[in-house]
Amino acid sequence: MTKIRLALAQVNPTVGDIPGNCDLVLESARRAHRAGARLLSLPEMMIPGYPIEDLALRHSFASACMDATAGLATRLENEGLGDLMVVVGTLSHSGRTDTPVGTPRNEPMNAAWVLSGGQVVARYAKHHLPNYGVFDEYRYFVPGDEPCLVGVDGSEVSLAICEDLWQEGGPVTWAREADADLLLVLNGSPYEEEKGDVRLNLCRRQALEAGCPLAYVNMVGGQDDLVFSGDSMVVDSTGELKARAKQLEPDFLVVDLDTNTRTVSLPEDDAGEAETAIQPRLDDIEQVYLALVIGLRDYVVKNGFKSVILGLSGGIDSALVAAIACDALGAENVVGVSMPSKYSSQHSKDDASDSAERNGLVFRVVPIEPMVVAFTDSLKLSGLAEENLQARVRGVILMGLSNSEGHLVLATGNKTELAVGYSTIYGDAVGGFAPIKDVSKTQVWELARWRNTQAGIRGEVAPIPEASIKKPPSAELRPDQLDSDSLPDYEVLDKVLDAYVEQDRGASHLVESGFDSELVQDIIRMTDAAEYKRRQYPPGTKITLKAFGRDRRLPITNRWREHLR
Amino acid sequence: MTKIRLALAQVNPTVGDIPGNCDLVLESARRAHRAGARLLSLPEMMIPGYPIEDLALRHSFASACMDATAGLATRLENEGLGDLMVVVGTLSHSGRTDTPVGTPRNEPMNAAWVLSGGQVVARYAKHHLPNYGVFDEYRYFVPGDEPCLVGVDGSEVSLAICEDLWQEGGPVTWAREADADLLLVLNGSPYEEEKGDVRLNLCRRQALEAGCPLAYVNMVGGQDDLVFSGDSMVVDSTGELKARAKQLEPDFLVVDLDTNTRTVSLPEDDAGEAETAIQPRLDDIEQVYLALVIGLRDYVVKNGFKSVILGLSGGIDSALVAAIACDALGAENVVGVSMPSKYSSQHSKDDASDSAERNGLVFRVVPIEPMVVAFTDSLKLSGLAEENLQARVRGVILMGLSNSEGHLVLATGNKTELAVGYSTIYGDAVGGFAPIKDVSKTQVWELARWRNTQAGIRGEVAPIPEASIKKPPSAELRPDQLDSDSLPDYEVLDKVLDAYVEQDRGASHLVESGFDSELVQDIIRMTDAAEYKRRQYPPGTKITLKAFGRDRRLPITNRWREHLR
Repeated sequence: MTKIRLALAQVNPTVGDIPGNCDLVLESARRAHRAGARLLSLPEMMIPGYPIEDLALRHSFASACMDATAGLATRLENEGLGDLMVVVGTLSHSGRTDTPVGTPRNEPMNAAWVLSGGQVVARYAKHHLPNYGVFDEYRYFVPGDEPCLVGVDGSEVSLAICEDLWQEGGPVTWAREADADLLLVLNGSPYEEEKGDVRLNLCRRQALEAGCPLAYVNMVGGQDDLVFSGDSMVVDSTGELKARAKQLEPDFLVVDLDTNTRTVSLPEDDAGEAETAIQPRLDDIEQVYLALVIGLRDYVVKNGFKSVILGLSGGIDSALVAAIACDALGAENVVGVSMPSKYSSQHSKDDASDSAERNGLVFRVVPIEPMVVAFTDSLKLSGLAEENLQARVRGVILMGLSNSEGHLVLATGNKTELAVGYSTIYGDAVGGFAPIKDVSKTQVWELARWRNTQAGIRGEVAPIPEASIKKPPSAELRPDQLDSDSLPDYEVLDKVLDAYVEQDRGASHLVESGFDSELVQDIIRMTDAAEYKRRQYPPGTKITLKAFGRDRRLPITNRWREHLR
Repeated sequence: MTKIRLALAQVNPTVGDIPGNCDLVLESARRAHRAGARLLSLPEMMIPGYPIEDLALRHSFASACMDATAGLATRLENEGLGDLMVVVGTLSHSGRTDTPVGTPRNEPMNAAWVLSGGQVVARYAKHHLPNYGVFDEYRYFVPGDEPCLVGVDGSEVSLAICEDLWQEGGPVTWAREADADLLLVLNGSPYEEEKGDVRLNLCRRQALEAGCPLAYVNMVGGQDDLVFSGDSMVVDSTGELKARAKQLEPDFLVVDLDTNTRTVSLPEDDAGEAETAIQPRLDDIEQVYLALVIGLRDYVVKNGFKSVILGLSGGIDSALVAAIACDALGAENVVGVSMPSKYSSQHSKDDASDSAERNGLVFRVVPIEPMVVAFTDSLKLSGLAEENLQARVRGVILMGLSNSEGHLVLATGNKTELAVGYSTIYGDAVGGFAPIKDVSKTQVWELARWRNTQAGIRGEVAPIPEASIKKPPSAELRPDQLDSDSLPDYEVLDKVLDAYVEQDRGASHLVESGFDSELVQDIIRMTDAAEYKRRQYPPGTKITLKAFGRDRRLPITNRWREHLR
């Protein structure tokens, strides 16, 4: 017997939902069994969900994860699935699993447990721990330092977890040294815009390095600011791609592995119900849009909300967020509120209602003048204070409706605004989630155009008013105001921000790259000064290499000013 | 020559203010020179300030730090201070310091540079990197792995940095192995409530371990949510305390080290202007109060503000914050605003104005009814939505005055409220800084009583109205409301929160410790559900072992519910 049928379950676990995550494992196991699989793998940290942050350090949580994972072995056996070998990511401890509550905690590990015949037959702990960008795994886990080889019908499967695949040495080398028949990699790898097909190239290179086929299984779904990429795949020992799952959405792969020849093939029978093929890659822009939809949907659903509410100004940002929200939750679960002031132009009011109509969302109009007047009568505010007041009155209205009716408030700010502080704290920054927080202004336009084009292709109404795309952006907080009064041209601004924020370049480097020196210093000054606002901004889906938040950590109190040498 | 005179400068650097921090070094060097010192040490990361977070990864910043530190050697020499050996914490690179901008970054190190005779004569890199609590040093630094021994008049001084002292092996052992004459430790050690005299006990133990005198120099001052402890000290090779600086405030120590006998003595001459003694420890409660004052003052001053504004409700939280703010900034720089609603009791209005009068702060009254009515006329809010509306109207008023007049807004919430979510997001949670964010409700009362007693001892007016201390707490957002309608008794609540939040105990452990099971589950449920509010809360001074914020990192989307086994 040299053939092993392998199933990879690309599923969407929820952080902390141990029973729900276990159920996903069982469902996947039933499906794998129906497909005739001998071995099933689920993603990294499947049982606790990922990333669990300081929950990793809590004894009660770690114990619950380990108990549930061990319990799964029994449940599989009781369902007659004990012959299926199941590899599942879980939170584990380095020491005994039966220490009494309250004793000094054992050392947590990011582990893969192998369940078979009603037992936990092997345990592997992640060796390379990522500790950059959004990852803090040195805080949470102790690294494993031993290979884990699992015997399946006389063949050997070597395990690895996520970062193990991205680093030289360790698990990939161990697979080669052990002459393994398969390198199985469990992943919790979040989406970010990629230059090229990084993941496939990595799998190819490491399969060659390991000298055996490589199976890569990743999770999908949103978790706070992260959306997981899916894109599970199998490459053979020559680095050839043999099967590939969807990006960003749940999927299920089944392949046959010939351990004599170390080749991989698609099942010749119909493999039960499994969809097995090489899924095409989505266009870059489609990936981004889909990530934003999933990030929002999972934040709403996993936090127990059913509906969202947002301010519709008639501008491009809120029009795009409305379209994303309707795609994520259905238009009937999206409430758009137009909150015109005396400075609102007729075209803005028209564009707001046009946006509502195109999407079919629930639309309301609440003019803000009476509330604004009530404040200015008491406080005599003018200038910037009066501008901010209007934004804050809108924030209070949205929060009032949220409290009354139970909708989650969406903040509609984009990454460019968030960078330079072109937003009002407790005003337009109000919200439980900020869907386009990591989308630059120029990319907002690009996504809007792309979404309208897709509607055209499908013969549907374009969800975003052309006028919102084409008109010059304005906050409309004073007469005839335009963004371009306060900010550089967005094309240039976004290029400077990309270099300063995402690439962490200093002022001199930017000027040497050809940007105007005064412009660079203005943008950097604005960006540095807005750090306190970003700290109080809601979470939103990360799509770039460096999102604001835990991806980019800077002190608020900070007198460093980039200067030219 | 077997005597070395050593000076320790306990100073307050500012993150990013490289020129200002260099000036502090020069001033300290002049003072050390006047005192006849041969060797001067400043704290960890003196030149960049501490902690600098992702600034550590920015090439332009690291280069500026290294250039400035090297430049200091020249400046010292030019001032005729080249004979003084100066040890200063700085950000360093593991490799060449002259790589062109834009090349892949070198690896940052948390370093101590030794300046002498116009040159950088030695460099040490921190070996043990803390990566727990508020620290993420594995993210920022590569560890050094070599001892650094500095020759001073035929004696050997061995260097260590902060965490190096708290861990076994490494620098302390290296000092013993090298038979060093002094172990000099540079620190950036933040304040948190301590059980006993942890720092002194550690210095004693490690001096014995190293077999030589130990000099410990720490910084002071506030940086966002941290306040540094000061408490610099020198113990001799038998572990005896010979000199100790103030806690939390700037100070300067000078001691004489006999390298033949490895004993430490206070200078017999007047040692220039140096104050040298064993400063007494402050009482625990005085430490906390002083930390809160310094944390607020440095946040305000280092961020370029001159004044603060806060809502004065007549309750104990805002009364305590007002007293802290007046102690930090002077009453003339503190604006208190009473914002009564139709639910505000006469005693609350009286207590608010009494609080203002006792402190002598700038007082205003802005009734909120007209604004509340403007909203409820448009929106028909009731119940919790109407309660929150009142808090949000107050938030908008404070922000409007802040925008008009330039005051920093203070949020007056305490840790207990923040834990269970008993606050209104964008309402009373509005602010740039939250001085008592990490102070439990029971400790709020304790601090208020202590502060009034201190005033009595000094013959001053007690700043906090007795009525605010004694009356039952109420949010006054509906008729006859009391905190006790919604929350357990604060004494019990704070005990449960201490176990759940600070000690990270699970529900079963709490119930086994004797707490009521339903109570425990209610409190845990409220605490978990408020995570989203805490994410948008302003920073505030950490005083406990585990503050909300980067000290305790939990996902918002989190279905884990503590349950009883």
